[in-house]
Amino acid sequence: MMRISYPSSRKIYAEGELHEICVGMREITLSGEEPSVIVYDTSGPYSDESVEIDIRRGLPRLRERWIEHRGDTEQLSAFTSAYNNEHFYNKNLERIRFPITHLPFRAKASRCITQKYYALQGIITPEMEYVAIRENQLADRMRVSTHITPEFVRSEVAAGRAIIPANINHPEAEPMIIGSRFLVKINTNIGNSALSSGIEEEVEKAVWSCKWGGDTLMDLSTGQHIHETREWIIRNMPVPVGTVPIYQALEKASGKIPELSWELYRDTLIEQCEQGVDYFTIHAGLLRQHLPTVKGRTTGIVSRGGSIVANWMIEHDKENFFYTHFEEICELLAQYDVAVSLGDGLRPGSVSDANDEAQLGELAVLGELTEIAWKHHVQVIIEGPGHVPMHKIAINMDEQLRHCHGAPFYTLGPLVTDIAPGYDHITSAIGAAQIAWYGTAMICYVTPKEHLGLPDKEDVRAGVIAYKIAAHAADLAKGHPGVQLRDDALSRARFDFRWRDQFALSLDPERAIEYHSQGTPSCEADHCTMCGPDFCAMRLSRGINQGVVARDI
Amino acid sequence: MMRISYPSSRKIYAEGELHEICVGMREITLSGEEPSVIVYDTSGPYSDESVEIDIRRGLPRLRERWIEHRGDTEQLSAFTSAYNNEHFYNKNLERIRFPITHLPFRAKASRCITQKYYALQGIITPEMEYVAIRENQLADRMRVSTHITPEFVRSEVAAGRAIIPANINHPEAEPMIIGSRFLVKINTNIGNSALSSGIEEEVEKAVWSCKWGGDTLMDLSTGQHIHETREWIIRNMPVPVGTVPIYQALEKASGKIPELSWELYRDTLIEQCEQGVDYFTIHAGLLRQHLPTVKGRTTGIVSRGGSIVANWMIEHDKENFFYTHFEEICELLAQYDVAVSLGDGLRPGSVSDANDEAQLGELAVLGELTEIAWKHHVQVIIEGPGHVPMHKIAINMDEQLRHCHGAPFYTLGPLVTDIAPGYDHITSAIGAAQIAWYGTAMICYVTPKEHLGLPDKEDVRAGVIAYKIAAHAADLAKGHPGVQLRDDALSRARFDFRWRDQFALSLDPERAIEYHSQGTPSCEADHCTMCGPDFCAMRLSRGINQGVVARDI
Repeated sequence: MMRISYPSSRKIYAEGELHEICVGMREITLSGEEPSVIVYDTSGPYSDESVEIDIRRGLPRLRERWIEHRGDTEQLSAFTSAYNNEHFYNKNLERIRFPITHLPFRAKASRCITQKYYALQGIITPEMEYVAIRENQLADRMRVSTHITPEFVRSEVAAGRAIIPANINHPEAEPMIIGSRFLVKINTNIGNSALSSGIEEEVEKAVWSCKWGGDTLMDLSTGQHIHETREWIIRNMPVPVGTVPIYQALEKASGKIPELSWELYRDTLIEQCEQGVDYFTIHAGLLRQHLPTVKGRTTGIVSRGGSIVANWMIEHDKENFFYTHFEEICELLAQYDVAVSLGDGLRPGSVSDANDEAQLGELAVLGELTEIAWKHHVQVIIEGPGHVPMHKIAINMDEQLRHCHGAPFYTLGPLVTDIAPGYDHITSAIGAAQIAWYGTAMICYVTPKEHLGLPDKEDVRAGVIAYKIAAHAADLAKGHPGVQLRDDALSRARFDFRWRDQFALSLDPERAIEYHSQGTPSCEADHCTMCGPDFCAMRLSRGINQGVVARDI
Repeated sequence: MMRISYPSSRKIYAEGELHEICVGMREITLSGEEPSVIVYDTSGPYSDESVEIDIRRGLPRLRERWIEHRGDTEQLSAFTSAYNNEHFYNKNLERIRFPITHLPFRAKASRCITQKYYALQGIITPEMEYVAIRENQLADRMRVSTHITPEFVRSEVAAGRAIIPANINHPEAEPMIIGSRFLVKINTNIGNSALSSGIEEEVEKAVWSCKWGGDTLMDLSTGQHIHETREWIIRNMPVPVGTVPIYQALEKASGKIPELSWELYRDTLIEQCEQGVDYFTIHAGLLRQHLPTVKGRTTGIVSRGGSIVANWMIEHDKENFFYTHFEEICELLAQYDVAVSLGDGLRPGSVSDANDEAQLGELAVLGELTEIAWKHHVQVIIEGPGHVPMHKIAINMDEQLRHCHGAPFYTLGPLVTDIAPGYDHITSAIGAAQIAWYGTAMICYVTPKEHLGLPDKEDVRAGVIAYKIAAHAADLAKGHPGVQLRDDALSRARFDFRWRDQFALSLDPERAIEYHSQGTPSCEADHCTMCGPDFCAMRLSRGINQGVVARDI
């Protein structure tokens, strides 16, 4: 049974004022007179003991009622995608298929149903109020003044400066917001490649990433049974799920790039829209004109999607079909409120290639595409690098703002050096903390296995925690209301030798407890395990704070 | 037998032009036509197979001849420190004493022998030429233009903007330089506390830290047999060794702070000067006037030395004796060329306390003390924080420059958040990379066990590598000549699927090999283990670079 628990913590819910909503959060109870601390919670129903968890049934469909209530969608009587229907009727797949069928919802004809559209109409949706409460949890509780009201959420979504990825076919997901004026979010990746793993392992890895604080999850599977694996994951995921649909399209083309076509890709988009994917990475900004700029690079194209597109363009001597069909893509995505993550197919794969003509040329095109998507009220985020030395990071943020009209930036790291394979969660957390401070809204995690192999569970944990650190450091540096309260509570616990409180307030309590238990002192010890009882600075210093002097230590 | 080896690497030596010196470095041989890459090497004779290693005899005394040649020092016929003599004649200690006695050297009467003094006289010492060659190794070899000449080293040392920690009684150490215009250095800490370990384990841990790239080593032992442990370490250390002498002084006072005295401390300084410690952390800037500013803090005083001094001042109602005796301290240190690291006893122990009145008040005093030390030609570095959120880091560097006349800054991290015990090598590497980019010359490593317990060997490795990453990232951002060549060589190897070359160029080849070997592909594979053979972006992209297209992947 997949369950998530944290020490000294309980699940609490805050109710909405505008809508009948309950926003889950985690309350950490501390000892003595210390007020409890509320923290943002990505673990969904898995940490609520009162909710029954059965991965064969999937999570409760939290948003279904909200969506139905709006009256602008309809449930279809069959899947629209040919591939999906074919799989649905394939008896051989019964063994691995998710047991319950949810027929898809879609916008009614000529209705627009995206959060961005609603926001532009002045409507505050339950999703918007939900994220306002969620972002404010600390600040509210601690009576810190804040600007994050439901109306502020609406205005940011309307302006395109923030998105709420919320496919109507993924009602299990708890609404969350990605935008530079909100808490920095982290994306995690999972995926079986041809070389690895099974369905249950993937679902477990996905839930595991939510346990440690993953805000969104990209399923980058490229192996067999992509469709079925994804179904299990989406039905059990309390966070938005993203994909790179070209990976599956290429599988359908038996790995033959020249055989990729708009029609094949379009059917894949529909298949995934109706399954409930919340955002798609689409490499629509990589054009034929950019290919000559790639040749002098140290590491060429390191984006899988980008290299597929580049090869297709060369083979067919045609423009990128993501680009030429971008309006149709947007029309399609709008019908399900799937957000587009404009992929950076030319992101630098080495510090040598950072901020080069290829990268910045593509970024300018992503700006054009943002305007097209917005015309269709599709929510947009912009993907960014990659490998970038520190002195070139700020320029990335500046150029993104200059070209992309304020759409949220979503970067992979960046890694600030190439020389530390095995430690790229660290090389990239250094860059991610900086670019998030400068305004990047979401950072895509990197695990210690980057460049070397597929991450296992411990790698996922290490990657998520490194990125929670980077995100929180950026929130602190941006002065986000209330975020320092957790630091302060933990530091007070440290100074008071309240070990259990320290652990409970940690990003990874289990690791902290494990490391602490390797030393001699117990949780009752009034000194730090580093200095030993005779040399503890804080013990000595407490006396000074209390006006008492340590004579004999 | 303690030996250090790195894959595809050999020890090479570059000769001096001004002096008869041989500067060790590591040459990494790559496959095919790729030129070899030279990297900075902190492993000393341990990685030279032609040198016999016997920790009972200690390392070759590299600098002894240079020092004698100058003719301004004399070898004493006995130790000057009462404590040292007492230990020397104590038969009970024979079992654990280092087997060979080296009687100490000291400056002849009225001679000044510090590197700073020589530099001011216009003398380029062998130490200065050594570090010039060492810093230039990459740039020279790769014909990158550079400003790091022996004369440049001399001028930076003369100005006090850089130091070469080089106690005449630690001739085993290879000269290295700490200054903002040179490669960023990292300090590692070891030490047994009352709760832990033995002599041989400490020596091994010290050598281990040099293997991974530690540039200097602080011995922070507080347990039994400090004197003997330190002797073993110094005799076997190819890098400068630092200490916080008040720790040992307090042991001598049986842990009773009120019984600490200038006389006791002075004897400890002499003991350690004659043993060969290269730099002392001295908390001379924490004054009585600062104590009221500590009271409102979240985490009071977190520096061990600082809290000892604070308690002593309160108990005796007197000014800090490090401060009142600072001129005498400098006179003493100058006789052995021991550098002073002005300790930040009031560094913030939480983001809440960052950049507060206590911290910045002490920093201003460190500036005064720098001028006093320089009057005696003592080399100076300034210690810095601590816990500092990102937006407050730059101010630390600015204030240090404003107060401390360009003396090198040496910071502990800083940690950019308090909420990640178990991962503070990461929280602090984020801050360290930034402050080093802004101009900090040396960063003191933090291990994953920080705040929780004493680091074991794997923690030391994790801490050193995290800090090598931060230092290298800063070197890249500062545009230090030649440092990007290693990144470029590794990235080319990555793009060419030359796996063995990638590993050899990594900061931690063993870890990279370990992670890579967990996947299926061998070192012969022409695809990345993350994407699998069918989806390898770089394999697809190679075709584009070579004008060939992948039709069927």
